[in-house]
Amino acid sequence: MSKSGKTPIVILNYKTYLESTGKNAIKLTEYVQEVNDTTGIKMGVAAQTIDITKILDNENIDIPIYAQHTDPITPGSHTGHVLPEALVEYGVSGTLINHSEKRMLLADIGQVTTIMKEMGLKSIICTNDVATSAAVASFNPDYIAVEPPELIGTGIPVSKANPEIVSGTVNEIHKINENIPVLCGAGISTGEDMVAARDLGSDGVLLASGIIKADNQKQALLDLVELVK
Amino acid sequence: MSKSGKTPIVILNYKTYLESTGKNAIKLTEYVQEVNDTTGIKMGVAAQTIDITKILDNENIDIPIYAQHTDPITPGSHTGHVLPEALVEYGVSGTLINHSEKRMLLADIGQVTTIMKEMGLKSIICTNDVATSAAVASFNPDYIAVEPPELIGTGIPVSKANPEIVSGTVNEIHKINENIPVLCGAGISTGEDMVAARDLGSDGVLLASGIIKADNQKQALLDLVELVK
Amino acid sequence: MSKSGKTPIVILNYKTYLESTGKNAIKLTEYVQEVNDTTGIKMGVAAQTIDITKILDNENIDIPIYAQHTDPITPGSHTGHVLPEALVEYGVSGTLINHSEKRMLLADIGQVTTIMKEMGLKSIICTNDVATSAAVASFNPDYIAVEPPELIGTGIPVSKANPEIVSGTVNEIHKINENIPVLCGAGISTGEDMVAARDLGSDGVLLASGIIKADNQKQALLDLVELVK
Amino acid sequence: MSKSGKTPIVILNYKTYLESTGKNAIKLTEYVQEVNDTTGIKMGVAAQTIDITKILDNENIDIPIYAQHTDPITPGSHTGHVLPEALVEYGVSGTLINHSEKRMLLADIGQVTTIMKEMGLKSIICTNDVATSAAVASFNPDYIAVEPPELIGTGIPVSKANPEIVSGTVNEIHKINENIPVLCGAGISTGEDMVAARDLGSDGVLLASGIIKADNQKQALLDLVELVK
Repeated sequence: MSKSGKTPIVILNYKTYLESTGKNAIKLTEYVQEVNDTTGIKMGVAAQTIDITKILDNENIDIPIYAQHTDPITPGSHTGHVLPEALVEYGVSGTLINHSEKRMLLADIGQVTTIMKEMGLKSIICTNDVATSAAVASFNPDYIAVEPPELIGTGIPVSKANPEIVSGTVNEIHKINENIPVLCGAGISTGEDMVAARDLGSDGVLLASGIIKADNQKQALLDLVELVK
Repeated sequence: MSKSGKTPIVILNYKTYLESTGKNAIKLTEYVQEVNDTTGIKMGVAAQTIDITKILDNENIDIPIYAQHTDPITPGSHTGHVLPEALVEYGVSGTLINHSEKRMLLADIGQVTTIMKEMGLKSIICTNDVATSAAVASFNPDYIAVEPPELIGTGIPVSKANPEIVSGTVNEIHKINENIPVLCGAGISTGEDMVAARDLGSDGVLLASGIIKADNQKQALLDLVELVK
Repeated sequence: MSKSGKTPIVILNYKTYLESTGKNAIKLTEYVQEVNDTTGIKMGVAAQTIDITKILDNENIDIPIYAQHTDPITPGSHTGHVLPEALVEYGVSGTLINHSEKRMLLADIGQVTTIMKEMGLKSIICTNDVATSAAVASFNPDYIAVEPPELIGTGIPVSKANPEIVSGTVNEIHKINENIPVLCGAGISTGEDMVAARDLGSDGVLLASGIIKADNQKQALLDLVELVK
Repeated sequence: MSKSGKTPIVILNYKTYLESTGKNAIKLTEYVQEVNDTTGIKMGVAAQTIDITKILDNENIDIPIYAQHTDPITPGSHTGHVLPEALVEYGVSGTLINHSEKRMLLADIGQVTTIMKEMGLKSIICTNDVATSAAVASFNPDYIAVEPPELIGTGIPVSKANPEIVSGTVNEIHKINENIPVLCGAGISTGEDMVAARDLGSDGVLLASGIIKADNQKQALLDLVELVK
């Protein structure tokens, strides 16, 4: 059990790695499901839009599946957009919002978070530092995930490179709304990173390449949660 | 048979209308398939990314299915993007590029068109006037679709409101490369619009609301091609 | 004197109207200076970047001159950007940030606000509703100006069309930081609008066409502040 | 005299370097004017918008001054934009368009080029490769400047790293319109680079850091044109 009494959660962002696209997305999600089931750590994945229904149709899978981006639109004349109503129709759990690889305008972050609430979907707003984390806390999303963009994909965990950004983010968010769970990301890949993230006050992690590019994805997942389960 | 001896093609852009989302996207694509089969008019659809695999998995459907947008990326650390390799894995035929509701940077239009060629996928570049049509002809896409944005969704066909834009586009594109088929769009909904588009030298149409929002989508499709089949 | 005891301030956004470009920008700024001096109402203008030094070089003018947009950059390899250091060199007072006609990414809003502070310049962050106003309060700018974009340029004052957005914005911003002055904008043009804005708790107004497009700009300015001076 | 019989031109992009901002922009432009006058090489500069009128007001300067970016807008409700009419009022010569540090949508490139023509201003469209250069040739700008973005600021001249991109660009542009002068950029800093650029068929260069960051900017300019004057 975690030091803080909370069991941390893990969200895996599939990005557009080949190792998490198409058939590989299905296989990887089955691993995530297994580790979710055997360890009791609550897991979810953010899949490419094109893969989402394939994953949801797999009867072995019932963990939450998120979109990586959703547009702040209503049904109508929009080409090349991701429609919130389509997420509902297929049973998608919610969406990442404002990931550092898909940054959004302030007004659009607010609007898509509102739409998610209205539709009963979860919103995970990504931020890049303490100040932007505090800012989006005013939107009352379901999660805030702070990821310093300069550490993404480096294997250098934010919890080691810049622990104050995690603890500071947790503090500032909780001044606005103490009920918003905070995830931390960027460079997370090992069980130690997971412990450090928890000890800095976060409620879980958002990660990608550390698991997706591992030689053995399933073992990497097991190692990740070994120390916190 | 058409005046010019060519049978025009029809591409239906599903945008994010509810009438062409989820289960409705499947049903509508079945109508398009039927009209394609019974009339001999070559048809295709540009579906929302989330719906694409559902449509492709339907055994009744073998018309070309296009994405509405694809990003000029290679596999890797990109969140919320549409990956060209995923289109290949699922059997998607190609993509719309630079639709007026999803405009792209010049460099990105060039790059995604190149990627489509390398992967054996079709590129349909959308443009807004004669000059931009001539410009993208240098990229040698599979199709160029000219749509004056001010007419989109109006029901006023470009072939009537501004016929010179269609004939001028065809002329200027063919000065660069006479083998690129030209589609015209914006406001197209009737069989007469279809004839006018053909008579102005275009090879087909790209359309959306005129069919998708019709009370009877299948009949609207039949009416559309009645005079050119 | 104002009901709340505070004298409201007025910031005039010159946008790219011909009536506030080039020589007209100088003349209009002289009017603003005169009305500032004769009425005691604190005024400032947000001029086009190209006009800024012409205005600042005018010896009759000493009211604050703001940029309409500044980029979150440091000196270097950036083309077509507005450099914060240049504002300092010329004596510009600060900048509008995230105007609805120049919306910015969340991370960039945070970054440019930080740069303004570091350089001793003023930041006026524009927002579109209560939630985005509360969000940017976490950046501690010098001013927040709320403007529902659907009312901009309509002549229908926000204080009449949607008074709750003004009072709600003031409340939510002050929960985060009670020292941030709140301006309201969109549709403001008369002395009554100015009173209504004040009575809803705002500290002033950000306005444009109501004055700039007036037949007599100076008289329009005098009328605007008549009831609150 | 140049091998091709043409005297090449030089356009210096000031970007946002401190060495070409404010007072430094004036001083540097005086150097450019002197070298223009003493060598007979036709020179121009693309200055930051805020510096433009200061440079134009300097009585020693009569070389062409360009904006680094201009928006495809008409006068009206646009905040933080660069208005074409303002360029005319102040005597600006024209504008860079679509620099790799300020990339534009295809439709906007076409539109701003059209506006420049209508106003009697010069358009210099920047491109990143052969295909995008051929594309914008259809807009018939006054100049096309090709700069592979990966070489910008490296000091590795495009004429050495990738000579085919220069000669190929010249060929493809001239197939569309043989009267458009082609500039090459990225990594240019020495007299040899200038010769190489000319010998590959270009009509001049667009450069920045090689001169702006030189210890002696004036000497660097003299060295640049020494072999082609």
